[in-house]
Amino acid sequence: MPHLTSADRLFLDDFRGLERIGATPAGGVHRLSGTAEDGALREWFRSHAEAQGFDVRVDGIGNMFACRELVPGAPYVLVGSHLDSQPLAGRFDGAYGVLAALYAASRALDRLAADGCAPARNLAVVNWFNEEGARFAPSLMGSSVYAGLYSIEDMLEVRDLDGVSVREALDAIGWRGSDAPPDAACYAEIHIEQGRILEREGLDVGVVEASWYTQKLDITVLGEQSHTGATAMADRRDALVAAAEAVLAVHDVTLDFPEEMLVSSVGQHVVEPNSPIVVPRRVHMIADVRSGDPEIVRAARAALLDQFERIGDRRRVDFIVEDFDVREVCRFPEAGIALAEEAMRAEGLASRRLSTMAGHDAVALNSVVPTVLLFTPSVDGVSHCERELTSDEDMLTGVRALTGVVRALLERTLP
Amino acid sequence: MPHLTSADRLFLDDFRGLERIGATPAGGVHRLSGTAEDGALREWFRSHAEAQGFDVRVDGIGNMFACRELVPGAPYVLVGSHLDSQPLAGRFDGAYGVLAALYAASRALDRLAADGCAPARNLAVVNWFNEEGARFAPSLMGSSVYAGLYSIEDMLEVRDLDGVSVREALDAIGWRGSDAPPDAACYAEIHIEQGRILEREGLDVGVVEASWYTQKLDITVLGEQSHTGATAMADRRDALVAAAEAVLAVHDVTLDFPEEMLVSSVGQHVVEPNSPIVVPRRVHMIADVRSGDPEIVRAARAALLDQFERIGDRRRVDFIVEDFDVREVCRFPEAGIALAEEAMRAEGLASRRLSTMAGHDAVALNSVVPTVLLFTPSVDGVSHCERELTSDEDMLTGVRALTGVVRALLERTLP
Repeated sequence: MPHLTSADRLFLDDFRGLERIGATPAGGVHRLSGTAEDGALREWFRSHAEAQGFDVRVDGIGNMFACRELVPGAPYVLVGSHLDSQPLAGRFDGAYGVLAALYAASRALDRLAADGCAPARNLAVVNWFNEEGARFAPSLMGSSVYAGLYSIEDMLEVRDLDGVSVREALDAIGWRGSDAPPDAACYAEIHIEQGRILEREGLDVGVVEASWYTQKLDITVLGEQSHTGATAMADRRDALVAAAEAVLAVHDVTLDFPEEMLVSSVGQHVVEPNSPIVVPRRVHMIADVRSGDPEIVRAARAALLDQFERIGDRRRVDFIVEDFDVREVCRFPEAGIALAEEAMRAEGLASRRLSTMAGHDAVALNSVVPTVLLFTPSVDGVSHCERELTSDEDMLTGVRALTGVVRALLERTLP
Repeated sequence: MPHLTSADRLFLDDFRGLERIGATPAGGVHRLSGTAEDGALREWFRSHAEAQGFDVRVDGIGNMFACRELVPGAPYVLVGSHLDSQPLAGRFDGAYGVLAALYAASRALDRLAADGCAPARNLAVVNWFNEEGARFAPSLMGSSVYAGLYSIEDMLEVRDLDGVSVREALDAIGWRGSDAPPDAACYAEIHIEQGRILEREGLDVGVVEASWYTQKLDITVLGEQSHTGATAMADRRDALVAAAEAVLAVHDVTLDFPEEMLVSSVGQHVVEPNSPIVVPRRVHMIADVRSGDPEIVRAARAALLDQFERIGDRRRVDFIVEDFDVREVCRFPEAGIALAEEAMRAEGLASRRLSTMAGHDAVALNSVVPTVLLFTPSVDGVSHCERELTSDEDMLTGVRALTGVVRALLERTLP
């Protein structure tokens, strides 16, 4: 580890403080949207932002904007990420990006002032609501509402598995706001890579040029409830046996395509009535299908629908399948990529361009304003997992990279 | 439907009243142990039993005994079943047996008195706690505690999927009692068949001679949590994919044996963390394996353990498997079967002997006292399902059959 400045030490201290909120015994965090932990994260964000002179606004879907008005009436450079996490998740996904944004924003302003330059934009650090979509689907909820991709009314009515709505959850923790969100000129975000490319190539930073095509399938399997002991095997219409075949089909469909061109899995899977002595009547599950090539996702989807029909016929159950959370390939603007690469060079950082298989708030924002997305290395590429890790050195390097990008965005207009 | 006596009409009216407790829109009932619905069933049972002159005692595991002391100090003829149900279950499983027991007990006493005979035993109608094992496993909980097969302290600490214990649930509805349960001389129960034999052969009543060998497997699959989008397929250790293969193995193992000699299924199956964008880390499931031949269950169990090991190796996950709720073949005493057959003949009812694949409180009781178990026909053999059905005529015939058995047990000692 090279010499740490006092600002670096403050950053690392703040990160150590942040990671204690919702900490799990195995070294991860558990911070679902709209829970008490989310409330504590929001208090943390508000107090840290206000201490650095930002004015915090909260919109109707719980997005938090820590604003510095520098040029009255001008649009804002937004920079941020999300503080919510998956269940039993890592400490870095999202949270690193928010803290890095707070530090990068302040440092960019300091540097502009030191250089005697005036910003052309206002500046806001953002904590987007419910990026993860763990408790409330779909993911990228707050940023997608901000970008006009989803209606706020629809999203406030989304319910978790216990029937609690987004509106109720935000009200319960006192964080459904009524402030108008700031108008964006552009958006920047830094996130952990959640892949192995930067680590393998020994690079400091990745500049994201595109995101994969992704979609989910909402799958309901309807059989008939019966007695596990007293029902002849031939008389059963077991929803779980059919669902098990569907889970394997979702996994195996990736084998029909070139290696690692398609990823696919079932993450959520709920059995009813879920009693040891009852043959299941119903399984509800969500499959996630992604590829850099939209045609591959479409072909995989068609193959799966065909297989579900055959499984249904053979097992005498019904499959109800709906498309859900479809995201086109997102290409980040070349001017933003070039601006980021120039900032990396100025900082002496080694970078490369890459794609993201994971969704990010930057993908939603890029549909409305020019957006820059940076990646910092992830050890072993693991994420959504308690052993997710980014080194202190990589985190600090990422802050430097993001500071350069934010400074450039405060001065320059992206086409 | 033949002529109904006023007593028959009262029975059917009472059954219609009983089926309203925990009624579901689709015509079934939902009455999990230790819930508000269970509390309502218990009030119903107490008030009906007291109205017929019984004195209600409640023991430490929530079993209810409606007692008539006829011969001070003598042991009791117990007759009963259970009022709890599976989730979204049928109206007849258990509840019919409790109501039939209340009516058969009163009628048997009336008939003895009319014939000028004196009972040699006392008489108690029983509502056993948690026969179903739906919310709290294992099943046959109250009757097994009564029979000394499980310790009451262990069972009071059993927890449901939300972490609520049996003790807490019974205390919450005010039904954890402290009365000493009556000493049993013998036990009788009538239950719906949950199979098709009586219906197919046009018989009135079945006399159960044995129960199947049954066991459960408590299976935990441990993988590693990761990101559904950003994790290469080759890097995943997906607990759900391995669990899906295990579900199919549990189903397909029945094909290794002669048709319908073995039934097997997974009824409970819980995925963690159960988020749409997370590759599952853990699946917990319970498999139920049953056969008339213990060797077949043992061979199926061995085949499954072997397959789980191979699945675990191939998918890079761990299987932790524990035996659970193992029940030997139970043979009901020949003297009780003969007594029941004599009672059927005296009533002019057509009966046959059969085995039960399902567990019943009678199986637990038969381990300590001579026990008689009767079956009444089930339409289509379906149960643990809202379309479970036994006709009014068959219910009334069953009450006649049980009355004959109870009367005989009050006078005669089974060896």
